[in-house]
Amino acid sequence: MQNKKIILSDGAGGKSTHNLIENIFLKKLGNPILNRLDDSANFPLPIRGVYPALRCGAHPPTPKGVGYKSGATTHFRLCFTTDSYVVKPIFFPGGDIGKLSVCGTINDLAVMGDKPLYISLAFILEDGLEIEKLEKIVSSIAETSKKAGVEIVCGDTKVVEKGACDEIFINTSGIGIVNDKFNISGHNARPGDTVIISGTIADHGIAILNARQELGLTGNLGSDVAPLNNLVKKMLEAGEIHVMRDPTRGGLATTLNEIAEQSNVGVEVEEKKIPIKKSVKVACEMLGLDPLYVANEGKLIAIVKEKDAQKILSAMIKNTLGKNSEIIGKIISKPKGVYLKTKIGGTRILQMLDGDQLPRIC
Amino acid sequence: MQNKKIILSDGAGGKSTHNLIENIFLKKLGNPILNRLDDSANFPLPIRGVYPALRCGAHPPTPKGVGYKSGATTHFRLCFTTDSYVVKPIFFPGGDIGKLSVCGTINDLAVMGDKPLYISLAFILEDGLEIEKLEKIVSSIAETSKKAGVEIVCGDTKVVEKGACDEIFINTSGIGIVNDKFNISGHNARPGDTVIISGTIADHGIAILNARQELGLTGNLGSDVAPLNNLVKKMLEAGEIHVMRDPTRGGLATTLNEIAEQSNVGVEVEEKKIPIKKSVKVACEMLGLDPLYVANEGKLIAIVKEKDAQKILSAMIKNTLGKNSEIIGKIISKPKGVYLKTKIGGTRILQMLDGDQLPRIC
Repeated sequence: MQNKKIILSDGAGGKSTHNLIENIFLKKLGNPILNRLDDSANFPLPIRGVYPALRCGAHPPTPKGVGYKSGATTHFRLCFTTDSYVVKPIFFPGGDIGKLSVCGTINDLAVMGDKPLYISLAFILEDGLEIEKLEKIVSSIAETSKKAGVEIVCGDTKVVEKGACDEIFINTSGIGIVNDKFNISGHNARPGDTVIISGTIADHGIAILNARQELGLTGNLGSDVAPLNNLVKKMLEAGEIHVMRDPTRGGLATTLNEIAEQSNVGVEVEEKKIPIKKSVKVACEMLGLDPLYVANEGKLIAIVKEKDAQKILSAMIKNTLGKNSEIIGKIISKPKGVYLKTKIGGTRILQMLDGDQLPRIC
Repeated sequence: MQNKKIILSDGAGGKSTHNLIENIFLKKLGNPILNRLDDSANFPLPIRGVYPALRCGAHPPTPKGVGYKSGATTHFRLCFTTDSYVVKPIFFPGGDIGKLSVCGTINDLAVMGDKPLYISLAFILEDGLEIEKLEKIVSSIAETSKKAGVEIVCGDTKVVEKGACDEIFINTSGIGIVNDKFNISGHNARPGDTVIISGTIADHGIAILNARQELGLTGNLGSDVAPLNNLVKKMLEAGEIHVMRDPTRGGLATTLNEIAEQSNVGVEVEEKKIPIKKSVKVACEMLGLDPLYVANEGKLIAIVKEKDAQKILSAMIKNTLGKNSEIIGKIISKPKGVYLKTKIGGTRILQMLDGDQLPRIC
């Protein structure tokens, strides 16, 4: 059922967001590319079909009569993704809205097996924002994009009056090249596949909440925000990967539910295998939050061919950003859905996030 | 001089915006693609350099030994642009924020001579927004993109609490294919070139102001918002075009200043040739606004080879969206800057917009 007004949980990445996407966006805008709802769109560029003058292979020159026949279409593939960032506060332990906006978009491309290349950057700024803050954010964007090997190629700036936005919102969109050797999608999990997580969960969400509410929780509570494209590169070289996704809004449990639904399979995960920092666990207990539903910004879930799982895991552990990777479960044919084998030996059904644990997490 | 705080005019597209871009964005993020500051970024895709497995011409197959040599890089070119839309009110005579967000991005690609293909769509929604409004906006996006022949391929939705944004903000980014036959850029105006405008100026800005302030001005005061890609296609077939740009924020005068600066030339325009609706002229006089600085969303400036000007103008006039096109001036080698020959025979220097005539116009 679609509500008559937008509510906060429509942006939380859980059930309510999925309803909005189904009932409004896909209903009116749906097409075969958009409908896949993967982390980035993947599509052919109909080069020949569009511009007869464009010829691949112009450098070096294409010999006369070779290459494009009249009317032929090249299925050269690109990927494209977009995200707006409204995180509050804009500076937090481990990062800021600038770093987050570059990493989030890089990760959405990388988890599809694509190579991120170019990023756009659009600001909505509130009248009165201190230039010093903007400079810090732009420096952070510059540093993160350089480190990840992507280029900012276009931008936009809008300013709204005081009170019409909250300090600064950023949109980044990203373009990458699809590697046709790989076929990675939320639709590709198969029974028998192994489920890997690239490190400790819930770090980002707890870092934001601690910073926002000034809870004063101490200990190791920084955000995990990081660009995952180099980790992914190593993983792709190590073995066959069927699904990758970064469990941001809605956390591990919601992302596994999305995959279970898209691939029409079940997912069984073992609670005791899921890595979580002690400080984060304690913070979650104090705040009454389930870490399985708390956002991550530098982690990925990989669902891989069983026989390649150890090789992929080893490659991940060698990378700084994957050093705490763990095999946490497997894909089953039925029952459909996501099941958690608890530490005390029971089984708990993990639903998709219902409601909003924490708004403006990213 | 850079202020210490963001002010509304930093988003107005005039001097203040240009300072911010120079002092903060280009200083920290500058690269040869971004530095051009054209309406869309235009760059090569290093296909071969990135993925040896990818071969252009795979359909039909590339004959053995032909096309890509080991290590060769293809200079296949794409274009990419981004814009956030914060227009207020979100519904106005002639359009709404949805139509505007699709047209704006299509136009930024089209005026570079590129063919717009794919668009991303990211919403920031305020808690409490009526779903009925969102549905109307999404319908308008669907209709406009269909009409213009572009596909929405990816999206994002964020929701912020009441008061943290104003109803709805939209970001669209767009990808297109560069046609290497053309070389269109703000840097390419040459002395002797002819300046054409595709129709009446200031329609969009006055429509928004009338709707926002409920001024109750009557007459023909709708926004001109429209996708210009089909008009551009006809123009490109008609003759040699050096520069095209859509005079949005800052209006005709600011856009001509940008071109004069980028191309290091002067621009001379004749006031009596500049088309303007009588109702818009009267509204501007009543409100104390100079129509030369008021935003347009369905118009373009073309700077073309003098001997092709009449052919291009004829092609424009045949198109509904260019039926009021006029030749309004010419490019001169010096003095640099923009000069208006007034109706009474004087000459007025047109500076870039200083301050903000009207915030949240797009």
